[in-house]
Amino acid sequence: MLISDLQTPALLIDAAALAHNVDTMAAIRSGNRLRPHVKAFKSTALARYVADRGGHSSFCCATLKEMEGMTSAGLGQDLLLANETLDADRLATLVAGNGRITVAVDSPQTIEVAAAAGAEVLIDVNVGLPRCGCQPAEAAALADTARSAGLTVRGVMGYEGHLVGNPSRAKRIEGVDASMALLRQALEGVGGGLSSAGGTGTFDLHDWADEVQAGSYLLMDSHYQRLNLPFRQALTVLSTVVSRTSSTTSSPGWAVADVGLKSLGMDHGNPTLDGATVLFCSDEHTTIMPAEDRGDELPRVGDRVQLVPAHVDPTVAYHEWLHVVEGDEVLDSWPVDLRNW
Amino acid sequence: MLISDLQTPALLIDAAALAHNVDTMAAIRSGNRLRPHVKAFKSTALARYVADRGGHSSFCCATLKEMEGMTSAGLGQDLLLANETLDADRLATLVAGNGRITVAVDSPQTIEVAAAAGAEVLIDVNVGLPRCGCQPAEAAALADTARSAGLTVRGVMGYEGHLVGNPSRAKRIEGVDASMALLRQALEGVGGGLSSAGGTGTFDLHDWADEVQAGSYLLMDSHYQRLNLPFRQALTVLSTVVSRTSSTTSSPGWAVADVGLKSLGMDHGNPTLDGATVLFCSDEHTTIMPAEDRGDELPRVGDRVQLVPAHVDPTVAYHEWLHVVEGDEVLDSWPVDLRNW
Repeated sequence: MLISDLQTPALLIDAAALAHNVDTMAAIRSGNRLRPHVKAFKSTALARYVADRGGHSSFCCATLKEMEGMTSAGLGQDLLLANETLDADRLATLVAGNGRITVAVDSPQTIEVAAAAGAEVLIDVNVGLPRCGCQPAEAAALADTARSAGLTVRGVMGYEGHLVGNPSRAKRIEGVDASMALLRQALEGVGGGLSSAGGTGTFDLHDWADEVQAGSYLLMDSHYQRLNLPFRQALTVLSTVVSRTSSTTSSPGWAVADVGLKSLGMDHGNPTLDGATVLFCSDEHTTIMPAEDRGDELPRVGDRVQLVPAHVDPTVAYHEWLHVVEGDEVLDSWPVDLRNW
Repeated sequence: MLISDLQTPALLIDAAALAHNVDTMAAIRSGNRLRPHVKAFKSTALARYVADRGGHSSFCCATLKEMEGMTSAGLGQDLLLANETLDADRLATLVAGNGRITVAVDSPQTIEVAAAAGAEVLIDVNVGLPRCGCQPAEAAALADTARSAGLTVRGVMGYEGHLVGNPSRAKRIEGVDASMALLRQALEGVGGGLSSAGGTGTFDLHDWADEVQAGSYLLMDSHYQRLNLPFRQALTVLSTVVSRTSSTTSSPGWAVADVGLKSLGMDHGNPTLDGATVLFCSDEHTTIMPAEDRGDELPRVGDRVQLVPAHVDPTVAYHEWLHVVEGDEVLDSWPVDLRNW
């Protein structure tokens, strides 16, 4: 199949860029030193590709649906729910299957759920991002509670999400050091030995944590591009230009592509398009104008354009398929089978 | 089923608020003076409810998937694709089915597609929003082109999307007058008689246009709430609190709900929660703090909270179900069957 045969909007993965990203990461964080984060791509087919090519066999997820899908796909060898859950029934079903199931806990309630389900746990520690995670000083007591409930405590998890998008590498280094000092302190009280941390923006700044939880590095987005990481932009949203103004002497005019708020994660802002300025997005449209001072021509009605989303995770979550492409050809189409919850 | 039985995140529709919204609109714009816009809710079950209770039988859509779903559900009596398409094959299949299919056109290319498919057309006219639509002065020539291609030209369409969210009613009135002056001028040249315009924010400001294309009024969002329209907030995102900090003397702390960037349209900003301040959203989380100066308590781990999304359309597009609720009870669960494209 050719790209021109696809209906739009459609997600495209550049096969060479994806391969480059997998290889680049695996060379720096090999095997279980990386725990690829499924939430960024929500596809077991892509996870299988990462396992096969990158040699990683432990994954992490943000939802039970992702955990269930990964287990069903035979990728549950060492799965971490890097999130809190109160659903003991679904967690118990996961634990009863084949594979090793670990869940993040940060409260007596989430420990109770893990105990009811029989999952292993990591104590989730707040290392600076105001989200989940106990205070470092509370970690040891929670580990005691968990062990008293019969649980295996594997160690600690701490996500420095307040740093991963900071465009200053020096600031990221400094921040990771401070966050990991907190996590190390927590691990001393918790025991178990395992430390899990990080993300795409800090993947090569962790010399202490055992494993890094990165997912966006595989497909990338314009937000992470600002960091000058060694990963290539692999994901674009293929779109058809459905409307274009007549040019006038007073205005360069605009063109309208059939991608919009329902095919793009918008929390990090508008998508980008080489040679054009994105004016705004509405539900099923993106209005683009020629880039300033470059003399670029507007695309014409019927042209296909590929926009780069600002945030990969919520973009993928809107789509049913990831099409792997090389040149004009669609090599494979992977279902986004881990959507919803 | 009870609301407490639902897994989260989940979309809830307050049955009484929805009924109020349908009745309020139908009292002001009855029958075919309203063309409810399916893009706002993407559910044929909800469309059926609007048809039955509100007495509207003509609908409009933003995508071919929505058109196909509405036709399959027996709601294709008078369907308008209020958008440009270049997919002659799918449009032809729609036309070959039962029902009346009309499509917006604004270029020779989109007219060619409509002609190949045999659809009726409205000439889409730009009335101020930099998106689709020809210039008013070009409309008559496009109508001639369409008729020469054998098409029935029903009239004109013009969406004043640059006005519908303006919090000043006086400014909306002024803007609608200016936009409708352009559309009226276009209709004179186009012929056919039908004028289609408007949205939820301007639904009661159209004394000239034959029909108003409103959809958000059914479920509403915090963005439209600012306009003091006579519609009630019917939609919330049900969420479970999965984490909460220990309170300290120096900080009110925060709680974390399991709703985030993949269950909320974010282009209009954060969701809102009564009694709380939303700090930020990440993929599967929303961090909330107590509302300032009110002394509200933070919810506890395991509590359910209902957030109001900032933008209804891209929020619904993330979900599989709309649960219709009354008190603690789930009366019905409607599939969001018109997702994707």
